[in-house]
Amino acid sequence: MDRDLPRLRADAQDNRDRILVAARALFAENGLDVGMRAIARRAGVGPATLYRRFPTRDDLVREAFTEEMHECRQIVVDGVADDDPWRGFRTVVHRLLALNVRNRGFVDALTSAEPARDLLVGHRRELLGMLDGLVSRARAAGALRADFGLDDLVLILRAGRGLALAPEATRARDAARFARLAVDALRAPGPGREQPV
Amino acid sequence: MDRDLPRLRADAQDNRDRILVAARALFAENGLDVGMRAIARRAGVGPATLYRRFPTRDDLVREAFTEEMHECRQIVVDGVADDDPWRGFRTVVHRLLALNVRNRGFVDALTSAEPARDLLVGHRRELLGMLDGLVSRARAAGALRADFGLDDLVLILRAGRGLALAPEATRARDAARFARLAVDALRAPGPGREQPV
Repeated sequence: MDRDLPRLRADAQDNRDRILVAARALFAENGLDVGMRAIARRAGVGPATLYRRFPTRDDLVREAFTEEMHECRQIVVDGVADDDPWRGFRTVVHRLLALNVRNRGFVDALTSAEPARDLLVGHRRELLGMLDGLVSRARAAGALRADFGLDDLVLILRAGRGLALAPEATRARDAARFARLAVDALRAPGPGREQPV
Repeated sequence: MDRDLPRLRADAQDNRDRILVAARALFAENGLDVGMRAIARRAGVGPATLYRRFPTRDDLVREAFTEEMHECRQIVVDGVADDDPWRGFRTVVHRLLALNVRNRGFVDALTSAEPARDLLVGHRRELLGMLDGLVSRARAAGALRADFGLDDLVLILRAGRGLALAPEATRARDAARFARLAVDALRAPGPGREQPV
């Protein structure tokens, strides 16, 4: 027993890691429409083990996206810290779109308009709260269109979900072009256009 | 026999119609990732009957979207016929996005960047060919941004696929707002903004 206990703990940790790796890969490639059984199969564990580690699907989703949530938050923190609010805002749009086309499941979870799917609702509220000040400053500077609402940003990120359906090879390029178009759409009417971020 | 033959023909037609109704509903709601068996089940026919009517999946996809292809073509024909090329172009963007959020499968088929999925490649080529002249005129009028490429339109329609994932109740509103943003993104830099279409 003395020798078995650490082994059991190590196995349990190993199972947990394998489940998360499997869930991340399947969510990223297919979005959130992935069954628990498929995740267990890919992880090479039984369904009972999966449910013991993650009693509900939502537990698994939240855990699987810890890294993306951190990255997402950092993008917004960096944008808010920019002295030039319009440049900060543009950078946020570019980087969030680039992050989102890499991971279908994350953008599903982050931007879903279906309340049952709104697993990261607290995370989203925090991000939008942080962006609020940046947006006000960019609007006050006359750079961001006056009728911009944070819903527009959510709309654009959700549209990015469509781009994540393309083959991986072209996704980053598509996201960059789409981000440039989005920024131009959100720009206040006026003369010249700045260089892209 | 004399009395059975018309009956058999009517049954065959009936099966064909039921298959198409089932396929349209499933494609519209779920995109093209729907199995042949699920379509047969929803239509209430056996797999053998389904494969007799539609030997390949692609036959079924093409047949299921005949109406959408017709509608799509009409949208472009109307846009090209507009005396004001920029108004014609805007109308095309608005109407195509509205059509696409109503039908996930159709936008998958129409805009997919995966060659294997590019079932409507001829249809797309025809539409883009028709749009070419309209785009040149809108650009010559100084209304459409100079670096606009038809790929941008495909990109925007594909992005619309992301919006089709929202609940049905909000899709039309999302598509309209997204179309307004898209038009602003594609507008040549300059002073005022026109009223939306």
